Amino acid sequence: MNPKQIVGEKASEYVQNGMKVGLGTGSTAYFMVMKLGERVRNEGLDIIGIPTSRATEELAQEQGIKLATFEEVQDLDLTIDGADEFNPDLQLIKGGGGALLREKLVASISRKLIVITDARKQVNVLGKFPLPIEVVRFGWEITFERLKALRLNPILRMEGEEAFITDNSNYILDCHVGEIHDPASLHEELKSMLGVVETGLFIDMASEVIMADNEGNVQIFSK
Amino acid sequence: MNPKQIVGEKASEYVQNGMKVGLGTGSTAYFMVMKLGERVRNEGLDIIGIPTSRATEELAQEQGIKLATFEEVQDLDLTIDGADEFNPDLQLIKGGGGALLREKLVASISRKLIVITDARKQVNVLGKFPLPIEVVRFGWEITFERLKALRLNPILRMEGEEAFITDNSNYILDCHVGEIHDPASLHEELKSMLGVVETGLFIDMASEVIMADNEGNVQIFSK
Repeated sequence: MNPKQIVGEKASEYVQNGMKVGLGTGSTAYFMVMKLGERVRNEGLDIIGIPTSRATEELAQEQGIKLATFEEVQDLDLTIDGADEFNPDLQLIKGGGGALLREKLVASISRKLIVITDARKQVNVLGKFPLPIEVVRFGWEITFERLKALRLNPILRMEGEEAFITDNSNYILDCHVGEIHDPASLHEELKSMLGVVETGLFIDMASEVIMADNEGNVQIFSK
Repeated sequence: MNPKQIVGEKASEYVQNGMKVGLGTGSTAYFMVMKLGERVRNEGLDIIGIPTSRATEELAQEQGIKLATFEEVQDLDLTIDGADEFNPDLQLIKGGGGALLREKLVASISRKLIVITDARKQVNVLGKFPLPIEVVRFGWEITFERLKALRLNPILRMEGEEAFITDNSNYILDCHVGEIHDPASLHEELKSMLGVVETGLFIDMASEVIMADNEGNVQIFSK
């Protein structure tokens, strides 16, 4: 079985009746949402989901998972989501799928963030994966030049011929930063910049990482 | 004459042939843009403007002022803009008109920010005017609750029956903060928050304030 499917389905076992659950985005979270849908239909699992993207919202709806808005729900039992990289401190880079802000917001109101990944996402030092930074479209060229001056090697994310636009109407600059030895400081520095809406560095948010390798072996890392 | 018109026209005298100028938003900046348009038509004043809002963009176009984008222009000689409050250090609250992010971005690439106001905007301590904070719409309720917990008394800005939406597709939370004794720290704290895009505190940006009172007396404050 696909390692993404293994961990996606494994993580869905953490979800119990009555829970409020943040539903992640991406190819690994897809399997978790599918499995939760199956449990809702087969076991009568009674949960409320908060999706982290429009794509996940549609998938969860198709799967018959009840959804709520932030008006109704402002704290969650857990969020299950993928990641693009994680280090031994369980600091993460996320946002390869473009949903970093929503994912971070949902994680921030969760008692636990369970990260589901395959073994390729495990690194000693973050930064091989380009760091996504969500920026306001107006004047993005200015922000781009400032990131360039900091030697963060930004590239405007494209979707075909057009710039990729997030669910919040912003752009993403993917920064080829190199090794990130102090992710917390880098996040703070970037977030404080004019025009920066959010960064893909998830600092002290993950409580557990469930990882499967290509042989289907599952490893769990926790804080 | 209306004090807004006096300072708007006075500030337009700072603009010289060949300059690249940030064009502010609001009822005082309106008179400055009108006067610049007159000088373009009557004196052949040759300038390039960068507008801070869609409203100013339209007005400047009607007035025949040449406009540029950030692709073409990444530094400006000066920006002329209004403010909602200024203190003796020339720290500002801006954003009553909802264009705080664009105004701040344009000011940030200007060698000088000239602020034009009437005497009611002069305060000893910032904070009588509610501080506008631009926030992402997704999950704004979470950001709202966090600001409330910090006792910043946020109110979602409305436009008739609907929430007001900025030119960047975000919401504005107007925070009734009370006296702001350390505007720089408050800005930093707020900007670092998840979901916050920008604050209306303009720290160390204004180089000069031109103020007129109801009798038409003009005072200039500079750093």
